[in-house]
Amino acid sequence: MTLRDASAARFGLQSFMGVPLTRDLSGARAAILGIPYDGGAHAVRVGARLGPAAIREQSVLIRAYEPPSQDFDPLRQLGVVDCGNVQVVPASVSDSFPAIEQGLWEIAGEGVIPVTMGGDGAVTLPQLRALARCRRDLVVLHIDAHTDTFPEDGPDRVRYSTATTFTRAAEEGLIDPGRSWHLGVRGPTYRPDAWGHALALGYNVIPDHEMRSRGIPDCVTAIRDGIGDRPVYLCFDMDIFDPSCAPGVCTPTWGGLFAHEGLALLRSLTGMNFVSFDVNTVSPPHDSAGMTAYLASAVMREFLFLACARPLA
Amino acid sequence: MTLRDASAARFGLQSFMGVPLTRDLSGARAAILGIPYDGGAHAVRVGARLGPAAIREQSVLIRAYEPPSQDFDPLRQLGVVDCGNVQVVPASVSDSFPAIEQGLWEIAGEGVIPVTMGGDGAVTLPQLRALARCRRDLVVLHIDAHTDTFPEDGPDRVRYSTATTFTRAAEEGLIDPGRSWHLGVRGPTYRPDAWGHALALGYNVIPDHEMRSRGIPDCVTAIRDGIGDRPVYLCFDMDIFDPSCAPGVCTPTWGGLFAHEGLALLRSLTGMNFVSFDVNTVSPPHDSAGMTAYLASAVMREFLFLACARPLA
Amino acid sequence: MTLRDASAARFGLQSFMGVPLTRDLSGARAAILGIPYDGGAHAVRVGARLGPAAIREQSVLIRAYEPPSQDFDPLRQLGVVDCGNVQVVPASVSDSFPAIEQGLWEIAGEGVIPVTMGGDGAVTLPQLRALARCRRDLVVLHIDAHTDTFPEDGPDRVRYSTATTFTRAAEEGLIDPGRSWHLGVRGPTYRPDAWGHALALGYNVIPDHEMRSRGIPDCVTAIRDGIGDRPVYLCFDMDIFDPSCAPGVCTPTWGGLFAHEGLALLRSLTGMNFVSFDVNTVSPPHDSAGMTAYLASAVMREFLFLACARPLA
Amino acid sequence: MTLRDASAARFGLQSFMGVPLTRDLSGARAAILGIPYDGGAHAVRVGARLGPAAIREQSVLIRAYEPPSQDFDPLRQLGVVDCGNVQVVPASVSDSFPAIEQGLWEIAGEGVIPVTMGGDGAVTLPQLRALARCRRDLVVLHIDAHTDTFPEDGPDRVRYSTATTFTRAAEEGLIDPGRSWHLGVRGPTYRPDAWGHALALGYNVIPDHEMRSRGIPDCVTAIRDGIGDRPVYLCFDMDIFDPSCAPGVCTPTWGGLFAHEGLALLRSLTGMNFVSFDVNTVSPPHDSAGMTAYLASAVMREFLFLACARPLA
Amino acid sequence: MTLRDASAARFGLQSFMGVPLTRDLSGARAAILGIPYDGGAHAVRVGARLGPAAIREQSVLIRAYEPPSQDFDPLRQLGVVDCGNVQVVPASVSDSFPAIEQGLWEIAGEGVIPVTMGGDGAVTLPQLRALARCRRDLVVLHIDAHTDTFPEDGPDRVRYSTATTFTRAAEEGLIDPGRSWHLGVRGPTYRPDAWGHALALGYNVIPDHEMRSRGIPDCVTAIRDGIGDRPVYLCFDMDIFDPSCAPGVCTPTWGGLFAHEGLALLRSLTGMNFVSFDVNTVSPPHDSAGMTAYLASAVMREFLFLACARPLA
Amino acid sequence: MTLRDASAARFGLQSFMGVPLTRDLSGARAAILGIPYDGGAHAVRVGARLGPAAIREQSVLIRAYEPPSQDFDPLRQLGVVDCGNVQVVPASVSDSFPAIEQGLWEIAGEGVIPVTMGGDGAVTLPQLRALARCRRDLVVLHIDAHTDTFPEDGPDRVRYSTATTFTRAAEEGLIDPGRSWHLGVRGPTYRPDAWGHALALGYNVIPDHEMRSRGIPDCVTAIRDGIGDRPVYLCFDMDIFDPSCAPGVCTPTWGGLFAHEGLALLRSLTGMNFVSFDVNTVSPPHDSAGMTAYLASAVMREFLFLACARPLA
Repeated sequence: MTLRDASAARFGLQSFMGVPLTRDLSGARAAILGIPYDGGAHAVRVGARLGPAAIREQSVLIRAYEPPSQDFDPLRQLGVVDCGNVQVVPASVSDSFPAIEQGLWEIAGEGVIPVTMGGDGAVTLPQLRALARCRRDLVVLHIDAHTDTFPEDGPDRVRYSTATTFTRAAEEGLIDPGRSWHLGVRGPTYRPDAWGHALALGYNVIPDHEMRSRGIPDCVTAIRDGIGDRPVYLCFDMDIFDPSCAPGVCTPTWGGLFAHEGLALLRSLTGMNFVSFDVNTVSPPHDSAGMTAYLASAVMREFLFLACARPLA
Repeated sequence: MTLRDASAARFGLQSFMGVPLTRDLSGARAAILGIPYDGGAHAVRVGARLGPAAIREQSVLIRAYEPPSQDFDPLRQLGVVDCGNVQVVPASVSDSFPAIEQGLWEIAGEGVIPVTMGGDGAVTLPQLRALARCRRDLVVLHIDAHTDTFPEDGPDRVRYSTATTFTRAAEEGLIDPGRSWHLGVRGPTYRPDAWGHALALGYNVIPDHEMRSRGIPDCVTAIRDGIGDRPVYLCFDMDIFDPSCAPGVCTPTWGGLFAHEGLALLRSLTGMNFVSFDVNTVSPPHDSAGMTAYLASAVMREFLFLACARPLA
Repeated sequence: MTLRDASAARFGLQSFMGVPLTRDLSGARAAILGIPYDGGAHAVRVGARLGPAAIREQSVLIRAYEPPSQDFDPLRQLGVVDCGNVQVVPASVSDSFPAIEQGLWEIAGEGVIPVTMGGDGAVTLPQLRALARCRRDLVVLHIDAHTDTFPEDGPDRVRYSTATTFTRAAEEGLIDPGRSWHLGVRGPTYRPDAWGHALALGYNVIPDHEMRSRGIPDCVTAIRDGIGDRPVYLCFDMDIFDPSCAPGVCTPTWGGLFAHEGLALLRSLTGMNFVSFDVNTVSPPHDSAGMTAYLASAVMREFLFLACARPLA
Repeated sequence: MTLRDASAARFGLQSFMGVPLTRDLSGARAAILGIPYDGGAHAVRVGARLGPAAIREQSVLIRAYEPPSQDFDPLRQLGVVDCGNVQVVPASVSDSFPAIEQGLWEIAGEGVIPVTMGGDGAVTLPQLRALARCRRDLVVLHIDAHTDTFPEDGPDRVRYSTATTFTRAAEEGLIDPGRSWHLGVRGPTYRPDAWGHALALGYNVIPDHEMRSRGIPDCVTAIRDGIGDRPVYLCFDMDIFDPSCAPGVCTPTWGGLFAHEGLALLRSLTGMNFVSFDVNTVSPPHDSAGMTAYLASAVMREFLFLACARPLA
Repeated sequence: MTLRDASAARFGLQSFMGVPLTRDLSGARAAILGIPYDGGAHAVRVGARLGPAAIREQSVLIRAYEPPSQDFDPLRQLGVVDCGNVQVVPASVSDSFPAIEQGLWEIAGEGVIPVTMGGDGAVTLPQLRALARCRRDLVVLHIDAHTDTFPEDGPDRVRYSTATTFTRAAEEGLIDPGRSWHLGVRGPTYRPDAWGHALALGYNVIPDHEMRSRGIPDCVTAIRDGIGDRPVYLCFDMDIFDPSCAPGVCTPTWGGLFAHEGLALLRSLTGMNFVSFDVNTVSPPHDSAGMTAYLASAVMREFLFLACARPLA
Repeated sequence: MTLRDASAARFGLQSFMGVPLTRDLSGARAAILGIPYDGGAHAVRVGARLGPAAIREQSVLIRAYEPPSQDFDPLRQLGVVDCGNVQVVPASVSDSFPAIEQGLWEIAGEGVIPVTMGGDGAVTLPQLRALARCRRDLVVLHIDAHTDTFPEDGPDRVRYSTATTFTRAAEEGLIDPGRSWHLGVRGPTYRPDAWGHALALGYNVIPDHEMRSRGIPDCVTAIRDGIGDRPVYLCFDMDIFDPSCAPGVCTPTWGGLFAHEGLALLRSLTGMNFVSFDVNTVSPPHDSAGMTAYLASAVMREFLFLACARPLA
């Protein structure tokens, strides 16, 4: 392949990294899906509806090969396609959640690995609902500055916000909290005992300060051992990064991972049986020079390599 | 159609105004095509390669109906589809021009009206080449702050820049200059006698100051009478607008049309046999808050109504 | 007052133009109130929650005197105070609307003229509810690119959006539609017959094209004659301005008023009995260099002069 | 001259429009001078110190020829050079004003026409001091939203601010107020009777509303007749433009001239004996996409054509 | 407290984190005060006058609780109020410094802990003057990329700039230099021997390179031991952070602390008797996406926890 | 030198750090040269043509002295002058490369050390051609996220892009690859085996991961030993920095050096015989708040100290 081929036709991308934009999954082992729903972050910053567009746009800067460990093209190996966006209705849980669940099911139900991009952190719950249809023993590895396990309940807006995703997931029995992890939790919150409800629900929580004192490799080993060969949903909230790297998120929180730390963490997640990937909370109206969307597209590139590396189901 | 339907699925658009993204033209009377080539503006501002992406993104704000004269949905009436982008090679005329010509031919050759978005002003020449294959008597209505008829020649970069498009078009015999118009020319240029070569090539030129003193309606009548029922290529350079409305263009020039003037000008172009539409020179890295791309998407909406209104060929 | 006095203490303003920030209305004839609710624009651009903060910040650039007709200080004449913001809950109609109504009532119920700043266009309905408690015959002069009279109904989110404010106001009998005006309506909408439901509800509608052909003075005279001495609620949506002046609104629409036109329109509204003023839809995340918020603060300055000039009730 | 020659070497300009950067005035009839002093706008927005750099940078977009009336190169005709910047000390009147006066004198004292760029509006006073050394009967044509004739006095900071320039100029006897004009004054001010002190000092004042009702040509004729063949200092404050065209000024004021109006006004100023030109108040930290600086460079281009056209002294 | 309560009323904040905006200190142990004076940074970047407004605006993103060590609400514990801004006069030391001193005295004189936000680094001197009225043995812990101990003298502008604050403080005998520290000094300066005058005045200086080689904990221990139970003024200049975290400061200097390092440094400052806190040099016109103001509001949150933890006086 | 002297005349800089702007090299040991050519990055982001202007502008924030090791003024010690910019023709290799070569030769041929600023990474090849005229045994220390040693060939645009600089340099025999180093290579690329061709050409390659595992000091020692006293060309691509520090480059790549790491790396390069310095790929249209240009000017400051320290040739 010549440089000319490589660079041709990439500007003004309408698909992630220029892969075919289609709902035809024949031949695909992984598929991209945009979920432009941001009704879950109403209490903070709304704008993640523009996240999928921004990520696709910035993905023009992302390239396939990186020696020594990633010196092949995951797009070809996986036959990646981009299925476009789920048709959501802004601010409507009752319209959007079924659409998201259906969108994911159309991919995962075919045995294809979904690689989705939000939208805010509320989009994960309907995705888990779809996965749970076909995956028993589903567990979650949630990399985020927040556990998203607040107990709040009330109208849809409160019941299904970004702050309650994993409360609802546990309550609905979609996943096994005892084998699921929240990694990298840090920073101030609205209420005391921020991790208390996560622990009460049975989740494992490794806060940022513990992750840093133990070291990421040790934490990853513990998680890998705990999860075993269960099917894993990887949920990655961009606010795990420091705002100096990712200012355009819904709830920026100082003190996060640097870009190289976050990408290395992802690269180290080998040996797990990932069945779905989700990156969320890129909010373009609050971004600076497209940095956050560009970093999110780098995260998605790591997802693809993890998808290549995963053991057979 | 309810508001919910109207607003659904629009965020994170991958196609212009959310029309089907496909190369299947069956049932379509008009088709969108992005041309992310900006090698023609090398001497000024490069960046229009990101124009199609930005226009599609901003088109989320554009709506179909406007009473009284446009109170119907042109997307439905025309069965508009979005064919995505031509695969160009940055800075390469020899690779990109044939690809653009072919991209346009695949639409126009099927009898479908192309509605294209650049890229810079150099993308017009290969489009004219495609049109000229099937349209004798092709004429151009060129709305631009510049005539793009400089005599410069030399290597591809100079021979096929934004400044020479209509010089080459006349030399290649693609259009009939004597029935073609440059409307709204204004502002400083690199060389004296800026309109001289346009006139020498046989073009009609109505500078901005004449357009303003005669009034737009009078000019449009004269153009309509001169063109008659010949097939018309409408080429619209966003720098016809004042930089207060459209700062993100390749060659911003103070003193241009206001948004309402430019859109009204387009709306008045009834009774002509338009066979192709082209808006160009949106340069997102030089834009402010997406204004220029948003105005370009409003221009494209006017194109669609003109397409609905055109007399049968 | 010396220049030093005038310029002192103005930076980092916490109140509009530096007036006292208090809920004590004794001595006040007009009071500022911020309404940071933006749950009504969920279908387009969310962000007007930051509008009051941005307007107060930009009001540092606004000054009192302008000869010849405004060569006095309206702040002193009216004893203006700033009551801060209503405590709203993002995206919750059921929590926010009663709070807004109460906030307005605490001002208007004391006989003080409210001068409010949104928030999006949905904040007007609860304000009208408060006014209607004490004002029979209330009418509205609504200056906006949209009539906000769509018939949509459904859950709160749809029933009480920016698109339905004046549908609900008429249905609830808060105002007299037959003596109320929508002035300056223009631009594309989601549905055909955009003004049809406004007319069916009994409203008077003067679209932008009619306003321009008749001239603003003639329209104002007709409105003044029609309204007579009824109490008037002036509702001003910043999208009446062209996006070149006010890019940071919820639904930018090309072809609007220029700054001088909009301010002159306001200045011409003498001889009416205004009882409440409302400017809305400044969305700072979508603004450029604070222009829209700055123009909104100039609009509020005109409100204050209208308040000084109004005939006694 | 070929396009290649014209476009060569222009990027990263260190001088206005790429003219020679030198203090050697032999052969020059006009010379550019930057005055990066912004201590006069301390009460509003500071930042015009970066104005000369921004104007030079944007001048890369400015070109020489414009048919029909300006179809020649003023740079060649005048042998324009760029003398760089005056060495000022931020916030220090006592250091900076003598330096500015000396900088101007080194040009004007040689019989060369200064074309200066601020800096804020305070930089005009020391320039007038230099001109007054060699020009009796000096008059000023001041195009600005403000008269800059406030009576304030006190420490240097107050005595020599942007608001008092022409108060001091009259008091110092540098110019003949009775033959000097303030054109285009508009907008709110800090104190009542904003024009009173200007009139008391003997100046002629044509406010914006009068300029618009009489028409610019009529006003210009009156000014031309009043000035006769006296030597004229043309002082142009960028806030004469509307903020939609020029947001990045020290005191933005809505309702100003559009770009084409301001440039046409300048173009109409023929038949006067201009001896010095000054454009000021570009404040890059408050600008958007470089628009204000770009418009200021277009203003300077008009200055050069006026310099070409002026009658012999 | 429910999420709804927590998120209510926070948008468009007029006070820091939404605390009561009042000068009534009864019941308060700490009070916020904005000091919008930026006349001390005239030689570099002016704009910190907008700092308090920006910090209050960004504080909407700041939350109270952070387990494990900060799992309580310092706002409640301290009864924090926001006293608004000091009324300063731009660029005038003689007007502003007495006003700042008085503003601080009205808080500190009541035994309440001031938590102030600049403004530039010059605002510290008048604050020290107020503190010194009631605190013998006052010492300073100054965390800054610069010592602000240059010997320059001259007119007010030079004598009381950001570069001379601690020179003057020592000369005026306000603090005990021998028990005061400058921590984290780094980067290029205007003059050789940048730390020489600090040492000559008797201050302790721990440059950045020493802080990094010894480790922050060791440095903090040394400072704590040196200070003992003396009353400490904590002065925190945002330029201690790297420009990747805090671009919008007066004198950005590469190589500074990352966000987590700076916040951890603050968190480690236990066991000292802080009597006043000051964060300065946020310059919004030079910021990017509000990052610097947001980080400053996180710094202020740490101040509040330090205030909770301090030993009784 | 007083602070006043130091700060005087710096705003609106037309030269790097305010040094004399001249082509007269008498007395100079080092000279600045801007190379505004960006035709080598056509495949990614174009805009580095504005790099020299932006770097000069930001250099107003750079200061000379930094204790303890750099506590002297390198500008005085070296008699630095700024020679302005090379006159290049956008997108034309055939016009620009000879001009760049000549521009460098006019400095290096006089025995003066060039300190150049791009422009994109393609500008290095013609500089090496100039150096190779007078320097046998020339070697390169290339600090960059990419080796720029792709084998692509074809038309000028492909043959002389940023991706092929050191392929061509080796092929042309300009440098000794066996004694030249590529340091810090990281991140994804267009093709597999990204370093393979560099190694095949004989270059030494130390990827980022190796640099981090060995430590920078160890790598520098190895490079110093390998180079010995050969004349070294230091080529520094700003994309070696992480995008959180330097977003405005041609090919941003996550995971790069932080500012303090990159500057410390440069500071450690003592004991080598540097004969030319080159910093490139600052692309202002893609920058945020001028950060990248400001960091590049800090890099150039380090170059000057290395120039002071180098052993005699």
